[in-house]
Amino acid sequence: MTNSKSGNKTSVIRVEHFNAAHRLENPNWDDQKNREVFGKCNNPNYHGHNYDLEVKVTGFVDPQTGFVMDIKELSDIINSQVLDRFDHRNLNLDVVEFEHLNPTAENIAYVIYCLLRERISEAVELKIKLYETPRNFVEYPA
Amino acid sequence: MTNSKSGNKTSVIRVEHFNAAHRLENPNWDDQKNREVFGKCNNPNYHGHNYDLEVKVTGFVDPQTGFVMDIKELSDIINSQVLDRFDHRNLNLDVVEFEHLNPTAENIAYVIYCLLRERISEAVELKIKLYETPRNFVEYPA
Amino acid sequence: MTNSKSGNKTSVIRVEHFNAAHRLENPNWDDQKNREVFGKCNNPNYHGHNYDLEVKVTGFVDPQTGFVMDIKELSDIINSQVLDRFDHRNLNLDVVEFEHLNPTAENIAYVIYCLLRERISEAVELKIKLYETPRNFVEYPA
Amino acid sequence: MTNSKSGNKTSVIRVEHFNAAHRLENPNWDDQKNREVFGKCNNPNYHGHNYDLEVKVTGFVDPQTGFVMDIKELSDIINSQVLDRFDHRNLNLDVVEFEHLNPTAENIAYVIYCLLRERISEAVELKIKLYETPRNFVEYPA
Amino acid sequence: MTNSKSGNKTSVIRVEHFNAAHRLENPNWDDQKNREVFGKCNNPNYHGHNYDLEVKVTGFVDPQTGFVMDIKELSDIINSQVLDRFDHRNLNLDVVEFEHLNPTAENIAYVIYCLLRERISEAVELKIKLYETPRNFVEYPA
Amino acid sequence: MTNSKSGNKTSVIRVEHFNAAHRLENPNWDDQKNREVFGKCNNPNYHGHNYDLEVKVTGFVDPQTGFVMDIKELSDIINSQVLDRFDHRNLNLDVVEFEHLNPTAENIAYVIYCLLRERISEAVELKIKLYETPRNFVEYPA
Repeated sequence: MTNSKSGNKTSVIRVEHFNAAHRLENPNWDDQKNREVFGKCNNPNYHGHNYDLEVKVTGFVDPQTGFVMDIKELSDIINSQVLDRFDHRNLNLDVVEFEHLNPTAENIAYVIYCLLRERISEAVELKIKLYETPRNFVEYPA
Repeated sequence: MTNSKSGNKTSVIRVEHFNAAHRLENPNWDDQKNREVFGKCNNPNYHGHNYDLEVKVTGFVDPQTGFVMDIKELSDIINSQVLDRFDHRNLNLDVVEFEHLNPTAENIAYVIYCLLRERISEAVELKIKLYETPRNFVEYPA
Repeated sequence: MTNSKSGNKTSVIRVEHFNAAHRLENPNWDDQKNREVFGKCNNPNYHGHNYDLEVKVTGFVDPQTGFVMDIKELSDIINSQVLDRFDHRNLNLDVVEFEHLNPTAENIAYVIYCLLRERISEAVELKIKLYETPRNFVEYPA
Repeated sequence: MTNSKSGNKTSVIRVEHFNAAHRLENPNWDDQKNREVFGKCNNPNYHGHNYDLEVKVTGFVDPQTGFVMDIKELSDIINSQVLDRFDHRNLNLDVVEFEHLNPTAENIAYVIYCLLRERISEAVELKIKLYETPRNFVEYPA
Repeated sequence: MTNSKSGNKTSVIRVEHFNAAHRLENPNWDDQKNREVFGKCNNPNYHGHNYDLEVKVTGFVDPQTGFVMDIKELSDIINSQVLDRFDHRNLNLDVVEFEHLNPTAENIAYVIYCLLRERISEAVELKIKLYETPRNFVEYPA
Repeated sequence: MTNSKSGNKTSVIRVEHFNAAHRLENPNWDDQKNREVFGKCNNPNYHGHNYDLEVKVTGFVDPQTGFVMDIKELSDIINSQVLDRFDHRNLNLDVVEFEHLNPTAENIAYVIYCLLRERISEAVELKIKLYETPRNFVEYPA
């Protein structure tokens, strides 16, 4: 029995976590409009979340290892590209990618995708699932 | 860095809960056949579940807000369209949509999809994931 | 190294599940008072839950087996004493213990304790933890 | 069958959530010592968490209701005493109780206990369990 | 209201569990290379996991039953085809399919897919999601 | 507001994980009796689990730090005393403490307690909660 390139692709998913502060704001709007649109998430002193991050890599299984990708290597890349920049940080103040980008869950997922794409081979597909809370989460690309 | 309509779509997912009683029955069958097919779920006095509902909306991120859709608005729509009708109810007796439709998880997901479609723009895609128990769940559309 | 009766007691916990319908009602009150006190839980057509049940048995470890109690045997007792009576049932209509007892989580936990006590040795302590929902649960005895 | 004051006490537990930013700091120490002791949690721009809060109330079951305490009322008290002050806030800057108290999980649990005690009868016991992350949590009183 | 073959397909998912020992090894490599590639997972005395298995079946809802497939029947097939062979076993030593196939999560998911395909109609689609730990999981086919 | 030694104790809990193989056996019994008592857990080729470990430390809060104990230090101790010995190992073959002790969940919890006690001050209380599966777990001391 073999499970190789003649067959279907397989996905491997690694889950990581980070804790961060943020606030939502559109700098082109006045305070009243920002409060109307973003509500409690617009608090100028910030609030925060435990973000759960699922990174999915899809490709063919290497018959030598039985892996799509070594999940330990995937974890290391997520740690150096994402967690070292985001964990225990203020996304608005400490992370350069959000200097001009509102740190909504949608935009954070997009930034994580871009940061990981720099280090993960184009031979595999990449998807991001980001939980802002257990009841609110996003996927990029859809 | 921007994350706009020239790129990929993003999905946002909101999780809600409701508790309901139901029983499974095909009124065209006799009691024996109903018991054979539906087993314990055919109990004439009903049983019940804590239903976990995930609603996924897929579209482009609005560059003004950083949102595909305001998740607070999505939650409000789920509450008024679904939870106000289903929560702490008997699906067979109290919910008009199941007057002639067996309230299996498959059919409940389909009804929820239709109820939400009335209020959610066709510009975005909509998917329903419904957990009847942590070990039994459905997705519509697949 | 040994872990025996000269030392401390150990607890073993088994988790089981059942799905049931119920409604809350005090038959000595009129409908208005029942609705005021029990709210949505008073719906005359019932609603339901996935109940998660944790049964904790505390005693000394038997040096022959390394067990406080065989957890397979504990599971069998919970199944025959509790799940065979409660699962996929209407607690108000189908379970004799609630003929004159309001099936609140507190009272269901108490009834489960009594049913299990009939079959579990007095040499060990017994505690019940019952989740009506992931956000509402009870413990008996406290 | 009755479950009343002649028997054992029962506990009821309600789970609520809030999201907040914080940083750990002892103002009597210099920056170097604060960084040594509190590490990443000392980030001057704050970080944040999804806090899961379990409030346990222990007492006798009221035979009229079958409740130790109406869990809806308990939820309302937690919302007005705790969530309205803490949710989507910066604990250090926005919450007066932490003006001179380091917002560690231990101290947050203690403050929550005090805020709830003002509104919950001394006839019942009160315990707080606070998850800062799924892997770090505290209980007060022990 | 009907939910039939003229519309979209629906997926039903059943979750099952098994506990097994395994080790990762490529017999064509020497010990040093195996340790380099597989790390702790190459321990010659084995280690183990609680595997969570999600089986997704996708098709049209049968208007007679309201089911895509009877989930009780799906559970029975998973038990006889997978759990009876894998649960409380050593995958390397006790399961013939891994005699010449490295039991990585990717390969286990593939073997489970093949074992279930023998018993599940080609009229429905089949997907496997296998959790080796809560933080490492795979999907086949992608 | 202060939370110091004049008041109640607080507990802090840290969760860690390890994956291990084991089998249950009493070497004083013959094969038939071992199979009767331990069932599938007696498989001579071993099976395995993802063990979830909760370590609870109870004491007074230090007013300088707001900590009962630095949870980072607690995590380090659990890693060096427990995970470095147990993770990705065969408990029966690789861990000296189980050379003459059956590795039931009860006995593993007891061994973990003893290993941690060597490094954790007697000024605080220590409790172990060990999940063998999400449905089977133990606590020591009770």
